[in-house]
Amino acid sequence: MLTVNAYAAPSATEPLVKTTIERRDVGPKDVLIEIRYAGICHSDIHTVRGEWGPISYPQVVGHEIVGYVTEVGSEVSLHQVGDKVGVGCMVNSCRECENCLAGNEQYCLNGNTGTYAAVDVDGTITQGGYSTHVVVVEDFVLKVPDSIPFEKAAPLLCAGITTYSPLAHWNAGPGKKVAVVGMGGLGHMAVKIAHAMGAEVTVLSQSLSKQEDGLRLGADHYYATNDPATFETLANSFDLIINSVSAKIDINAYLALLRFEGTLVSVGAPPEPLPVQVFTLFNNRRSFAGSSIGSIRETQEMLDFCAEHGIAPETELVAADAINEAYERVLASDVRYRFVIDIATLA
Amino acid sequence: MLTVNAYAAPSATEPLVKTTIERRDVGPKDVLIEIRYAGICHSDIHTVRGEWGPISYPQVVGHEIVGYVTEVGSEVSLHQVGDKVGVGCMVNSCRECENCLAGNEQYCLNGNTGTYAAVDVDGTITQGGYSTHVVVVEDFVLKVPDSIPFEKAAPLLCAGITTYSPLAHWNAGPGKKVAVVGMGGLGHMAVKIAHAMGAEVTVLSQSLSKQEDGLRLGADHYYATNDPATFETLANSFDLIINSVSAKIDINAYLALLRFEGTLVSVGAPPEPLPVQVFTLFNNRRSFAGSSIGSIRETQEMLDFCAEHGIAPETELVAADAINEAYERVLASDVRYRFVIDIATLA
Repeated sequence: MLTVNAYAAPSATEPLVKTTIERRDVGPKDVLIEIRYAGICHSDIHTVRGEWGPISYPQVVGHEIVGYVTEVGSEVSLHQVGDKVGVGCMVNSCRECENCLAGNEQYCLNGNTGTYAAVDVDGTITQGGYSTHVVVVEDFVLKVPDSIPFEKAAPLLCAGITTYSPLAHWNAGPGKKVAVVGMGGLGHMAVKIAHAMGAEVTVLSQSLSKQEDGLRLGADHYYATNDPATFETLANSFDLIINSVSAKIDINAYLALLRFEGTLVSVGAPPEPLPVQVFTLFNNRRSFAGSSIGSIRETQEMLDFCAEHGIAPETELVAADAINEAYERVLASDVRYRFVIDIATLA
Repeated sequence: MLTVNAYAAPSATEPLVKTTIERRDVGPKDVLIEIRYAGICHSDIHTVRGEWGPISYPQVVGHEIVGYVTEVGSEVSLHQVGDKVGVGCMVNSCRECENCLAGNEQYCLNGNTGTYAAVDVDGTITQGGYSTHVVVVEDFVLKVPDSIPFEKAAPLLCAGITTYSPLAHWNAGPGKKVAVVGMGGLGHMAVKIAHAMGAEVTVLSQSLSKQEDGLRLGADHYYATNDPATFETLANSFDLIINSVSAKIDINAYLALLRFEGTLVSVGAPPEPLPVQVFTLFNNRRSFAGSSIGSIRETQEMLDFCAEHGIAPETELVAADAINEAYERVLASDVRYRFVIDIATLA
């Protein structure tokens, strides 16, 4: 067992505090990673505050992780000591169900093992990336290309893949009109990736406050959703809408923006159900779909795509002792567009 | 103007009565059809009773129509006097929007002209098929193959195409597991068509009361949805679910039956919104879609498909003066599986 520094939530209501946690010994197929950077995802906050269900405490979160391999197990063949690597939202899966066997372990029918707050194969609760080290089976470790600035790479492991996967799956590309709902951590990545794929990109944000950023990051158009005229102007317009907003939205108003055979894909997860008018789906043969992160293969493809196209998230680097303050700023939408923890400050 | 017999609703609350209505003179591109049979669709009842919004009265409904061509306009090239023809849910469209230009006039962005209770190009309100004659522009008239029993062909024009279109679009066929929710007018056609397409077909009906019929019509499996075990047994099973039920259902329970990348397509239209849990869509990258009838090209394709595979609806022939009684039986689900009016009884 390895005792390592970490920032943990002691309970659903207290601030995160510096502490130590145990990491398992490096098994034959494991990789030990010295974490350098960890992104702060809104999911981290929902989880530690128990908003997605009860968890056990103390809990370390963080599923946007990059670092260096410092040790490999005897049977590891995919990674070497010194490699720049990343870990995203899952660290294992059942490897037996039809989805895992088809390489879609993000849709593991037995529930893949989340990077934090999940029951691991050894019965322990997984602990996330706000920590100096993590031990992960080699198949769930990604290679981070050198050309991606390392201090910006971490958010690709969640915000990047979560938006890349539906954009790739629903064929965003030349000739396709793609709308991105929300200009936050996920949304700003969706804009960059959809633009790099060659799609015509429109941002639908509550106000025009981030318009300049949106256009700079690759959007062709930018509309405020607090202006009702937006929904008239853009009716029947989009082939694909990526909804990155986790709050409840008027889903029918957005579905009505889809053109023939268009799809609205939610990657944001409001806890309450969204009331869908079936008549809105009838028009234009529309679809409402969900998408959850991406497979390991697809995550590597996304990292390579971002390296090739010079894409990295917009980040603000914070020290470990600023995590609680960063949480408050995330909740106030006061971040452009992702906090990344400099794990060196936790050593 | 042609004065013809018809059965009309005098108001939202009174029974339908025998009356006469006017049909326009046959224009250069029009076809005059002597109607032989008209199906009774649940939509007819919703419409005359004002349940889908206010309409003007008297109103003749019926959008499952077959008959013989008895006169053609000077510029008509598609049909000849004596042809066996059909008319479905629409009798015109704008012909200018991108959907019409692409041959998807059922999704006309300016609203296609419904066969009844719609404003026609001349400003009159369209009157449906519970009538001895109808005048329709030739492009919206279908050819009914001889091998389909004429007294059973009418319901294909709505119930047939409404289920054929999503089954064809979402690739029901060999190796695909298709579920049909509801064993009514639409559902029993979905079973026959999906089976003929080569899919493995499962009926999900409230009870097992129609199980024998379902298996006889082509279903491989039949489950009662009033048994909670059904939803456990069938979790993550289907590539495609056709929901033919117009009442509100627990949509998330059905979405959870979709396997990887499965789609639930509603062709039934509950007036109230269905609350969709986005997390249910996340699993298996599921989609919830709508589908509305089918294009004219696709409707002809469906008629030819049914002729080729010997498919026709299960019908009960009624005289015109039994329409009101038939309505009550439709509302009581006491029909196996479609009433067809023998229009000869209206002459």
